[in-house]
Amino acid sequence: VGGDDERVAALSGPNHAEEIAAGIPAATVVAATSAELCRRLQAAFSTSRFRVYANTDLVGVELCAAAKNVIAIAAGASDGLGYGDNAKAALMTRGLAEMARLGAAFGADPRTFAGLAGLGDLVATCCSPHSRNRRAGLLLARGVPPAELEQRIGMVVEGVATAPTLQRIGRERGLDLPLTERVCAALEGEAPAAAVELLLAREPGEEF
Amino acid sequence: VGGDDERVAALSGPNHAEEIAAGIPAATVVAATSAELCRRLQAAFSTSRFRVYANTDLVGVELCAAAKNVIAIAAGASDGLGYGDNAKAALMTRGLAEMARLGAAFGADPRTFAGLAGLGDLVATCCSPHSRNRRAGLLLARGVPPAELEQRIGMVVEGVATAPTLQRIGRERGLDLPLTERVCAALEGEAPAAAVELLLAREPGEEF
Repeated sequence: VGGDDERVAALSGPNHAEEIAAGIPAATVVAATSAELCRRLQAAFSTSRFRVYANTDLVGVELCAAAKNVIAIAAGASDGLGYGDNAKAALMTRGLAEMARLGAAFGADPRTFAGLAGLGDLVATCCSPHSRNRRAGLLLARGVPPAELEQRIGMVVEGVATAPTLQRIGRERGLDLPLTERVCAALEGEAPAAAVELLLAREPGEEF
Repeated sequence: VGGDDERVAALSGPNHAEEIAAGIPAATVVAATSAELCRRLQAAFSTSRFRVYANTDLVGVELCAAAKNVIAIAAGASDGLGYGDNAKAALMTRGLAEMARLGAAFGADPRTFAGLAGLGDLVATCCSPHSRNRRAGLLLARGVPPAELEQRIGMVVEGVATAPTLQRIGRERGLDLPLTERVCAALEGEAPAAAVELLLAREPGEEF
């Protein structure tokens, strides 16, 4: 987020382009620190099939958009290892909590993470066959070397670049980002199955 | 939730039995108002593959377990109508917010709804082929009469009984539960496609 926030806006949500182009209903968030800019963009982008909600938490929406891709790599790896729906649902729950911890460190609104740009986009990205980041995790679990991921997928996989950046921020600020840490390790060559064992070895205590 | 809360506990989370029986890792929440009872049950049920977290918000965990089935009927109907991943992700996001409003009316801890029994179980129930409630929604969208749902599925579909109960509570307490209202209407014979149009006709404003 740059210094001239009043002129910056972000549009983000569970918005696979393939479905929007087909006219299937979708909802999204437009975020800007200026409520006036939010309203103008909301009016400009809204249609009867594309529902635009306004949120002035620009930094929260931007962090959701970046961080959910890292969690989706982990979700894809879980699927690729055959861990099923229970494990992926638990992983997504912990992933959203990890995203919210990151957001809290930047003063984001916690509600943004429970909204369309947070939870909504996380669900779409972790569960949809359209998701490139999820597919990167699937390929990692099948033994594809990290350096070959983008070539195999044929498109940019944002989470591959985002993961080490979030890891650095997390370490600098002392945040607990266990999924991001394990995705980074897998992108450096650690076997995804070993990552799962490490996560399962964490002591379950109080939920909060 | 009865009066003798100290002796009542609930275990709930993204826990499809088919996967747990197969030894695939899963996580869950054990809830009791007594932290001591929580800890005893946590120790009794924990294994290296079944990770049990403790939460003293008993009423929140119980409400999550009940309400998520109603949202899953809506998610199944969305799938059955061909609405894709974007729309279902938005529906689940709004569904979790609806569950949290219900919880707030009962004094539940808002964090429970972002946890394994809330978000986690919602994801598992709305997305898994194992889910009976999701399947009920799929069948409704395909024109199966509500009275035939349970016979077709061959098992109890909890959300069918829960939806009118939540509707009554919501109306008594003045809560905004639009998905629950539309699920009830569909169970009374309204075409699921008409429900979607009604939901899309709501004015999108501020996200929060």
